[in-house]
Amino acid sequence: MAESRPEKYPAIQGGGSLMIAWQVKGKHVLVIGGGEVAAGRIVHLLNADAVVTVICPSSGLNPEVSYRVAQKQVTHVDRIFLPSDLDDKDWSMVLVAIDDPAASTQIWKLCKQKRLVANIADVPPECDFYFGSVHRDGPLQIMVSTNGKGPRLASMIRRFIAKQLPSNAGRAIEAIGELRAKLRQVAPRPEEGPKRMSWMKDVSDKYSWEEMCEMTDEDMTNLLTFYEPNKVPSFEDLRGMRASAIEAAKADVFDGSFGFSVGV
Amino acid sequence: MAESRPEKYPAIQGGGSLMIAWQVKGKHVLVIGGGEVAAGRIVHLLNADAVVTVICPSSGLNPEVSYRVAQKQVTHVDRIFLPSDLDDKDWSMVLVAIDDPAASTQIWKLCKQKRLVANIADVPPECDFYFGSVHRDGPLQIMVSTNGKGPRLASMIRRFIAKQLPSNAGRAIEAIGELRAKLRQVAPRPEEGPKRMSWMKDVSDKYSWEEMCEMTDEDMTNLLTFYEPNKVPSFEDLRGMRASAIEAAKADVFDGSFGFSVGV
Repeated sequence: MAESRPEKYPAIQGGGSLMIAWQVKGKHVLVIGGGEVAAGRIVHLLNADAVVTVICPSSGLNPEVSYRVAQKQVTHVDRIFLPSDLDDKDWSMVLVAIDDPAASTQIWKLCKQKRLVANIADVPPECDFYFGSVHRDGPLQIMVSTNGKGPRLASMIRRFIAKQLPSNAGRAIEAIGELRAKLRQVAPRPEEGPKRMSWMKDVSDKYSWEEMCEMTDEDMTNLLTFYEPNKVPSFEDLRGMRASAIEAAKADVFDGSFGFSVGV
Repeated sequence: MAESRPEKYPAIQGGGSLMIAWQVKGKHVLVIGGGEVAAGRIVHLLNADAVVTVICPSSGLNPEVSYRVAQKQVTHVDRIFLPSDLDDKDWSMVLVAIDDPAASTQIWKLCKQKRLVANIADVPPECDFYFGSVHRDGPLQIMVSTNGKGPRLASMIRRFIAKQLPSNAGRAIEAIGELRAKLRQVAPRPEEGPKRMSWMKDVSDKYSWEEMCEMTDEDMTNLLTFYEPNKVPSFEDLRGMRASAIEAAKADVFDGSFGFSVGV
């Protein structure tokens, strides 16, 4: 019979948010308003491949939003919001960033009636979710949230983290994704799945994060030769397999013997 | 006329997710399944103050989920999922973590019919959102996502970040929240809003993140005396105002003169 061993289980720390990576690729998102806040939301949405519609009179668009409209990065509806807009498409979410608290609250209520996910900027009780400060480097995304205690601090922490991360962190993640894909080419049979997974786990465990960041394409090709015997070399050994390292070793031998003959 | 100056606007980098902090405080969340994956989801949900219902036959509960049930941290429904469960409450989201792909897909389809936000574990196309690896320190939450390229790497990066952060980062965020609250007591008038905001901004700009982490309650009380003249002292000057620093300075003066008289 399993004993209850609470010390093994994470202690609950209430007061946080549920941090999630929302999938909006190819989905319709409605942005109501076209000012500075809307401009920031639009960048987040386009970075996540959303199909964005902005409803805002042209006179209310800030230069950045106007630029996105001109570039056809978003669809622009040149008027104020009408309740029927909510039925216009199968919206994945609705983001409101207008300077009209009463209208905002009305839109929030309509969204809730229609079970639409919504965020009314600067009105926490009228938000299904909050935004945070996000660091982006290719496939890597890091969101910092202070749960409303300090948005400026969140940006500060985000910049602090960005400074600490190896500069090629995003590239390293791509590389691991590539290694996994290459491994599936080397060992494509479905029944090898468990061996593939366990070897990838061994690879992750063997190398430090910093070492992974330094891994070249050549290193990966060499590393894959260790899959068959189900081994993972040290990073030093892996680096020693580089053509340049082998050349250097050969040159050392040559220089050494030359030096020796001259010396004698 | 505003010129279009694209270099001023962030370049769009597609392929990411929309990183958000979902608000589930006091809201009902349905977890279908009671294994290891469900156990992890439940911790995230309870940390965000969700009201959690777990549907899973008792025989399928892992020890951690059993413990949460025994502690009444979650409500347990001791049977397999029935479609009518989706109508049972006003679910904020539905998380599925069962070893039955066909049943999972059915639940996903039902959720979409009912416009319910859902996540089917390990089936990316059947997810409105993904989870990431989350660092938590009081009000600070940092989520790392590799957008599916490597969940193990995400944990590795999360641990790397946790190691770099000042150990009292969460406390510093609480402190800034307190400073803002205290400032509203010192200067409560609504018309002071802009001055309060601009002073808080000056405070954020003046001190480094590391200095903010070292700020004591006493430092905050001293700092607030600079709000009226709308100034922000250097961190060194602020530390010099600590009672202990003043005592030490007095002691130095006393020791100095004592030493001098003895010396003569």
